[in-house]
Amino acid sequence: MLMEQFNVRFYETDGLAHVSNTVVVGWFETGREPIFRMFTPELDLQNWPLILASYNVDFLSQIYYGKAVEIRTYVSRIGNSSFETLQEVWQDGIKCAAGKTTLVRFDYTLNKAVPIDDHVKEQLQEHMLDSDKA
Amino acid sequence: MLMEQFNVRFYETDGLAHVSNTVVVGWFETGREPIFRMFTPELDLQNWPLILASYNVDFLSQIYYGKAVEIRTYVSRIGNSSFETLQEVWQDGIKCAAGKTTLVRFDYTLNKAVPIDDHVKEQLQEHMLDSDKA
Amino acid sequence: MLMEQFNVRFYETDGLAHVSNTVVVGWFETGREPIFRMFTPELDLQNWPLILASYNVDFLSQIYYGKAVEIRTYVSRIGNSSFETLQEVWQDGIKCAAGKTTLVRFDYTLNKAVPIDDHVKEQLQEHMLDSDKA
Amino acid sequence: MLMEQFNVRFYETDGLAHVSNTVVVGWFETGREPIFRMFTPELDLQNWPLILASYNVDFLSQIYYGKAVEIRTYVSRIGNSSFETLQEVWQDGIKCAAGKTTLVRFDYTLNKAVPIDDHVKEQLQEHMLDSDKA
Repeated sequence: MLMEQFNVRFYETDGLAHVSNTVVVGWFETGREPIFRMFTPELDLQNWPLILASYNVDFLSQIYYGKAVEIRTYVSRIGNSSFETLQEVWQDGIKCAAGKTTLVRFDYTLNKAVPIDDHVKEQLQEHMLDSDKA
Repeated sequence: MLMEQFNVRFYETDGLAHVSNTVVVGWFETGREPIFRMFTPELDLQNWPLILASYNVDFLSQIYYGKAVEIRTYVSRIGNSSFETLQEVWQDGIKCAAGKTTLVRFDYTLNKAVPIDDHVKEQLQEHMLDSDKA
Repeated sequence: MLMEQFNVRFYETDGLAHVSNTVVVGWFETGREPIFRMFTPELDLQNWPLILASYNVDFLSQIYYGKAVEIRTYVSRIGNSSFETLQEVWQDGIKCAAGKTTLVRFDYTLNKAVPIDDHVKEQLQEHMLDSDKA
Repeated sequence: MLMEQFNVRFYETDGLAHVSNTVVVGWFETGREPIFRMFTPELDLQNWPLILASYNVDFLSQIYYGKAVEIRTYVSRIGNSSFETLQEVWQDGIKCAAGKTTLVRFDYTLNKAVPIDDHVKEQLQEHMLDSDKA
């Protein structure tokens, strides 16, 4: 599991005095930064190696301003050229949101998916959901 | 079908020179505004009648700055206290993203789901996916 | 004067049930798009010709969800390599915010300011604050 | 001086592969959270005690993804019902942006400015620019 913790930002709330649902996908992206570094240690935007194919988020409990949130990130599937993350938002001991994201190893010059390198697969493997639970 | 059209905003792009995936759920929220008005014609934040339960988005083609996008919104399911929207982002004749969102008729004071009024169900029905396709 | 009109987006509100002050600089950027086109008609991100040097915003009246806003954009100063815009947010007949932004004609490859072309200066001139007021 | 440090988020970059200027006012808001707590220790959104009157930001050097940023916050003026902060963004030993924000002690029910409590003034005083430099 990868973990990232930060305070809710005031502007991330909305008129209902809770965190806007639109914010969570950005938090999840932020939680994936250690995974980005497996593919591009320098986080090189000029040769970015990934594209996002899909995401879903289930909202389980409202998230509020004034308390830190914790983003937990697992790898839930590793394929040939794509992989999936399972991520959760925790606040005050409560799992508030959970979602899966599918990312593809992508060559922006060729405009197509390419296989994930073996040494990257090994690093992803270390954060697999099952190996954490075991 | 409900339709909303606007220009991509410069700050909605990211370092890959395309629109950030994190932006699309906000666009979909914006596309649902006519649906919000079915539940609260005055868009009254003090008595907001809905909560978002989940969403998913499939990203089909990159979205770019400099051309307008069109958000198409259908109702894809109507339940007792919840309903689902199917929404699409179109740019330059291409369907770039599609996603479903589940919303719940919610009483923030009681902190629980309540049934959708019949007259609102009728309005939702007018935008059902099937009735559009028929 | 250049004008742009759109609805406030739900996620642009914050926990005080008004529009977050952090949103307005993005709206102003959006209002400057016709000015961007004077410098790069294709809005070419690969050869972007401008960099932002500074901005300020005065907040005069709260902005709310549920009503359209209008962004009014004037050119308030034209220099050799830089120029300034004066922009306003109007909602419901009230001027809610006003701000100035200084932009510089910039060569990202050379990493330095360069003079504004004369034909661009002429286009900027058409939107000068004084010529509008006259 | 108050200090806050965090990583640049991927979605905070724009199509020029640097951090969007529109992001910085949100970072500054986040850097002011310890000041918000002087006025409302519980960060109570239902009785929020402040409103933002104006801000300005000078952009001194481009900010990039992949390195942490540090937000430094000073109090630069204390008035009867308003005060001003001076804030800076530092990255990699470089001051990248600096800005001032004027905030007003505000009663949202009365819709008017009210005096800042003396015990809050004392707390603000501890972070005055001069006392830091001394």
